[in-house]
Amino acid sequence: MKVYPEDLVRKHMGEAHISDLASASIGQMLGLAQKIEKATDIPFIHLEQGDPGLPANVIGLNAEIEALKRGVPGKYPSSAGLPELKEAGSRFIKAFLNVDFKPESVIPVSGTVGGSFMTILLLAQIDAKKNKILFIDPCFPLQQAQCRMLGVQWREFDIFSFRGPKLRQALEQELAHGDIAAIAYSNPNNPAWICLEDSELKIVAELADKYDAIVLEDQAYFCMDFRRDLSHPFKAPFAPSIANYTSNCIVMTSASKIFSYAGGRIGLVCISDKLYGRKYPALAQRYGNSGAYGPTFIDYVVENNTCGTSNATQWAYAAMLDASVEGKINFVTDMKEYGRRAERLKKIFTDNGFHIVYSHDVKDPIGDGFFFTVGYEDLSGAELIAQLMYYGVSCVNLANSGSQEKGLRICTSNMKEEDYPILEERLKAFNEDRNK
Amino acid sequence: MKVYPEDLVRKHMGEAHISDLASASIGQMLGLAQKIEKATDIPFIHLEQGDPGLPANVIGLNAEIEALKRGVPGKYPSSAGLPELKEAGSRFIKAFLNVDFKPESVIPVSGTVGGSFMTILLLAQIDAKKNKILFIDPCFPLQQAQCRMLGVQWREFDIFSFRGPKLRQALEQELAHGDIAAIAYSNPNNPAWICLEDSELKIVAELADKYDAIVLEDQAYFCMDFRRDLSHPFKAPFAPSIANYTSNCIVMTSASKIFSYAGGRIGLVCISDKLYGRKYPALAQRYGNSGAYGPTFIDYVVENNTCGTSNATQWAYAAMLDASVEGKINFVTDMKEYGRRAERLKKIFTDNGFHIVYSHDVKDPIGDGFFFTVGYEDLSGAELIAQLMYYGVSCVNLANSGSQEKGLRICTSNMKEEDYPILEERLKAFNEDRNK
Repeated sequence: MKVYPEDLVRKHMGEAHISDLASASIGQMLGLAQKIEKATDIPFIHLEQGDPGLPANVIGLNAEIEALKRGVPGKYPSSAGLPELKEAGSRFIKAFLNVDFKPESVIPVSGTVGGSFMTILLLAQIDAKKNKILFIDPCFPLQQAQCRMLGVQWREFDIFSFRGPKLRQALEQELAHGDIAAIAYSNPNNPAWICLEDSELKIVAELADKYDAIVLEDQAYFCMDFRRDLSHPFKAPFAPSIANYTSNCIVMTSASKIFSYAGGRIGLVCISDKLYGRKYPALAQRYGNSGAYGPTFIDYVVENNTCGTSNATQWAYAAMLDASVEGKINFVTDMKEYGRRAERLKKIFTDNGFHIVYSHDVKDPIGDGFFFTVGYEDLSGAELIAQLMYYGVSCVNLANSGSQEKGLRICTSNMKEEDYPILEERLKAFNEDRNK
Repeated sequence: MKVYPEDLVRKHMGEAHISDLASASIGQMLGLAQKIEKATDIPFIHLEQGDPGLPANVIGLNAEIEALKRGVPGKYPSSAGLPELKEAGSRFIKAFLNVDFKPESVIPVSGTVGGSFMTILLLAQIDAKKNKILFIDPCFPLQQAQCRMLGVQWREFDIFSFRGPKLRQALEQELAHGDIAAIAYSNPNNPAWICLEDSELKIVAELADKYDAIVLEDQAYFCMDFRRDLSHPFKAPFAPSIANYTSNCIVMTSASKIFSYAGGRIGLVCISDKLYGRKYPALAQRYGNSGAYGPTFIDYVVENNTCGTSNATQWAYAAMLDASVEGKINFVTDMKEYGRRAERLKKIFTDNGFHIVYSHDVKDPIGDGFFFTVGYEDLSGAELIAQLMYYGVSCVNLANSGSQEKGLRICTSNMKEEDYPILEERLKAFNEDRNK
């Protein structure tokens, strides 16, 4: 039996100006679910939004409080960032990815969202002939929304059928057009939690170098592939990163997920040392400077977009990075709770007729983490998302991420203990009603 | 006698990739001065950067500390902003400008820099035929840098010769082209500290309505025209604002200057209620939504640019706004120190052969505040800025703000007690050397 009548859901869709659930954004799905909850007093199971589901890191909170006691909001931040954070970021990336970025090239931004926005803006300007971004889908839909907002064009392809050596052909087909400024993906992947493996990163790097494209690697879920123990600073195994294979790259990470500090809006853009100093005539022309990528990013893009990020929060982030590098906290272990939630959720879904859509990397099954993807028989994402709304389960359509597969993104972050039996009951009802 | 040899200054200009001081940005002037200080151990008098010169507001600091103790960084901010801050902002604007903006239409941003960036981006998209910004110069150069970065075109004119009723002719000449989406200015003015008077705002409003342009009013220096006592909430006199005269407007303010909270990167964009709900087909087409200005700004522009602003800082700002409205703090009186500094600085400059460039509003002399402008005989801004560098005084060229007048911007914010006699000595030396 359905939890909410179909006409009630449709009525609230109309009021929220949502004409089609199939293309509704995360925020729209959340807003709609909250309105229906308010009207009916029956809570949804919220599997749509990736808000941290754990308390903010205490070391960060304490460092930020100390910084406020010193009155740090009284001065503008430097657009280049707090030197202590730049140093800490450089060490942190070395400790967990085993790659080198000079502190100069490590720049604080308003989360990976802010970093991605500013980076896409600038990458689309480095060469008039290369003005497109190539997304390896499934992608974080917000990045394509950034492109739409900035008027930046893109190409994309779904990696589903192109894992391992096949990736070369798919990538080269797009790069051969000669109009790609940058190749963007997230690793671990939002929404599918697949991870590009080292062999695949080598291919990406090789083709980026061949076609002179910059790789934009989003590591918002830094070291959160729990299949291997990536938690020991300066000790193998390290999380895979494109920075091992090309010097034409930018790696982003943030405090939002690994330190549950999303409300602080703080992340890092790490520009490879080579790219940092590389001079682009098109940038020199537009900005009247040397055209060097890194200084242009800092002095123009960061300066003109937000004038830097909160001083106090930069101190918080520096303290959390330092504590991780020094082994005082283990952010990987702290985050494993999401993996446990994913394991339980996957069982409930698969016990009730669902299957995992992006189930494997090149050979191995994907890990349990922040997200996973589900399908049901051959229902389209659009049909499935609407059906699950009626049964009180709010998700996001996989099609929004450029995926060609039918299914939904499931986010584990908001699950509470009392939610599991309710979800089980609802999915069971859905599955039974389908098979009546 | 000069403080630094000319060749030393030129050497450091070369190293800092500054080919011409005439067009150097605030940040470049500051960076150059700091490098010369480091090399010589002789400090500059810093009149270039508008960093707050007073400690951060304690009510804000305490509220932010309390918010951190509650763990607020653990959740993403809402792109629309914290309800408490939206309410506080709406009340604050009513209390000191005597104009009404619904809390819904009051949106937290990363300072007026962030607010201006996002607003210019969106205003340039509302109508393909109206894609230019009209700046009433002198303007805050960073806003034109934002346009350059976004590829947004602009028109501009210097108001110097067009005060009072003459403003109509100057404005109409530009608006008549039919391609202006928005008219932008700051009040009080950065860099010249002139203030558009009510009679002038009426003209701006009337023409904005006639040509269907949106007025973007930057009130970063909110109520800091100290000529009248604007410090009493809900009591006349109120600071002048365009919002009294047109419903086609956006008013921005921030915590950076009035609460010395620049390091928190927090401000407000207040969208008139009419504009908030106004539907633009071009926005609907680009974003696939209703095309309403306010919701598009929140759900797309804020969401995709930074994903909102720091939760903890929003609590700080709300507390400072509330305390101001309740009369618990008097931010206007707190800021009068800048007026005292301006008075002393103006005397030192005018005693040594300088004159105030933008000296009057329609009839009255300008007030003493955060900035003023100086010229020396008929020296160009380019010559004067270079000369003063040699004498150990760092300023910004007025020409960068679109001004057609010869002169420099002087910022009072960094002056310390011990700086006045040194400045006096240096300007005296400069003036005497010129008259040898």
